[in-house]
Amino acid sequence: MDDAATNAPVNEAPYRLLDEVDLGEGVAIYSFTNLYGCRIGAGTRIGTFVEVQRGASIGAACKIQSHSFICDGVTIEDEVFVGHGVMFVNDKRPRATAGGELQTEEDWELLETVVERGATVGSGATILGGVRIGAGAMVGAGAVVSRDVEPGATVAGVPARPLRGSAPALQ
Amino acid sequence: MDDAATNAPVNEAPYRLLDEVDLGEGVAIYSFTNLYGCRIGAGTRIGTFVEVQRGASIGAACKIQSHSFICDGVTIEDEVFVGHGVMFVNDKRPRATAGGELQTEEDWELLETVVERGATVGSGATILGGVRIGAGAMVGAGAVVSRDVEPGATVAGVPARPLRGSAPALQ
Amino acid sequence: MDDAATNAPVNEAPYRLLDEVDLGEGVAIYSFTNLYGCRIGAGTRIGTFVEVQRGASIGAACKIQSHSFICDGVTIEDEVFVGHGVMFVNDKRPRATAGGELQTEEDWELLETVVERGATVGSGATILGGVRIGAGAMVGAGAVVSRDVEPGATVAGVPARPLRGSAPALQ
Repeated sequence: MDDAATNAPVNEAPYRLLDEVDLGEGVAIYSFTNLYGCRIGAGTRIGTFVEVQRGASIGAACKIQSHSFICDGVTIEDEVFVGHGVMFVNDKRPRATAGGELQTEEDWELLETVVERGATVGSGATILGGVRIGAGAMVGAGAVVSRDVEPGATVAGVPARPLRGSAPALQ
Repeated sequence: MDDAATNAPVNEAPYRLLDEVDLGEGVAIYSFTNLYGCRIGAGTRIGTFVEVQRGASIGAACKIQSHSFICDGVTIEDEVFVGHGVMFVNDKRPRATAGGELQTEEDWELLETVVERGATVGSGATILGGVRIGAGAMVGAGAVVSRDVEPGATVAGVPARPLRGSAPALQ
Repeated sequence: MDDAATNAPVNEAPYRLLDEVDLGEGVAIYSFTNLYGCRIGAGTRIGTFVEVQRGASIGAACKIQSHSFICDGVTIEDEVFVGHGVMFVNDKRPRATAGGELQTEEDWELLETVVERGATVGSGATILGGVRIGAGAMVGAGAVVSRDVEPGATVAGVPARPLRGSAPALQ
């Protein structure tokens, strides 16, 4: 980190990269973000250091917090909370190359993931490809979700499992 | 990531967003950072891709490494090491909305977290809201801390538990 | 995140910080990246929000995905896939200070980590210092790797262990 500075001057420019993004009304996108080829519903907030890839779809009135990565194949419905540092995955066994050349989209099967309305994904969670997180469910911080989560359930841990005694979340 | 380039020219500008930050003497802040409404003590270093929110307080002579997120409600005392990709949490059951509207600060109870003097939080750790990490304690890389950590203890895992035979860290 | 804006104008500049980087032919580096004093082999792709430190070496035809951190002491061979949000570590017991002053490189023992040819490190994984991940091995998403991984093995969990019945990956 050789570019350090001491009490450096403030730089106020809003550094955002937006390319072919279908933005709803009143979307708020913070600085240091990279969104391309995706859909963002009305009123949703996208935090700093977030990347949303081509093919991802995010509903209305969502909060996508800082440092998160939303990949192709992910559909996030309305009123979903995605915490900080959440990583979505869309490939079961990713590899850098095929036959010595960098893989392209043709080299893998895209796994589709859905986060249903009103669900929460806690900070630091990793969501494997191909799962469905049910409406109003809550994924605990730091969980690794490798199978479907029932609507209203609370799951936590690695791999994520329902918490004993967890009841459907009220909301 | 459609903005790729091949061996692109170097861009040396120090991209930092600082807004109402109370900075001590000799603080070093690296590029691609977003700090607002927080306090940073003398001599502390803040790495790239770090966000520190309004209301957070970081002491003197700390190292806050790249990709970490320090939220409102977190107090980090002096001489603390926060590794790379560490996520702090301040809400027990976060939701995107309340009554169909995006939640605001009035909609949740802010949990207060303290990392005491000289402690270390390993890279990739997630720290749930409301915990106290004792002086000189060491949180292992990738741990999810859901309860208090005793001073000098070493904890690891998901959820984080004391390592067998761990003695208070010398320092 | 007080720098929010609503449907803000697009800013297309490629924000990259490259300092003393030994770049091979056809390397692609995305925006919001910080690379210094490292080596990147031919044809490799480096995603957004990635930091690669002085002393790190990355081979040819690798994919280093967004939000990952590659530190000094890490050698990544050719055709390796590093997922999103992967954190490498090079210090067994990091501390912010030594004798009250911020630690420098002289204050710790640098642990060397190797990721051999064709291996995959899943998104959200944390790789402790001093391990060797064998050729063609696969580290599951969200794993915390604290010991060597055999060539061709698949490991997952915290700490990472071989999956039952996992066979060497074909490739």
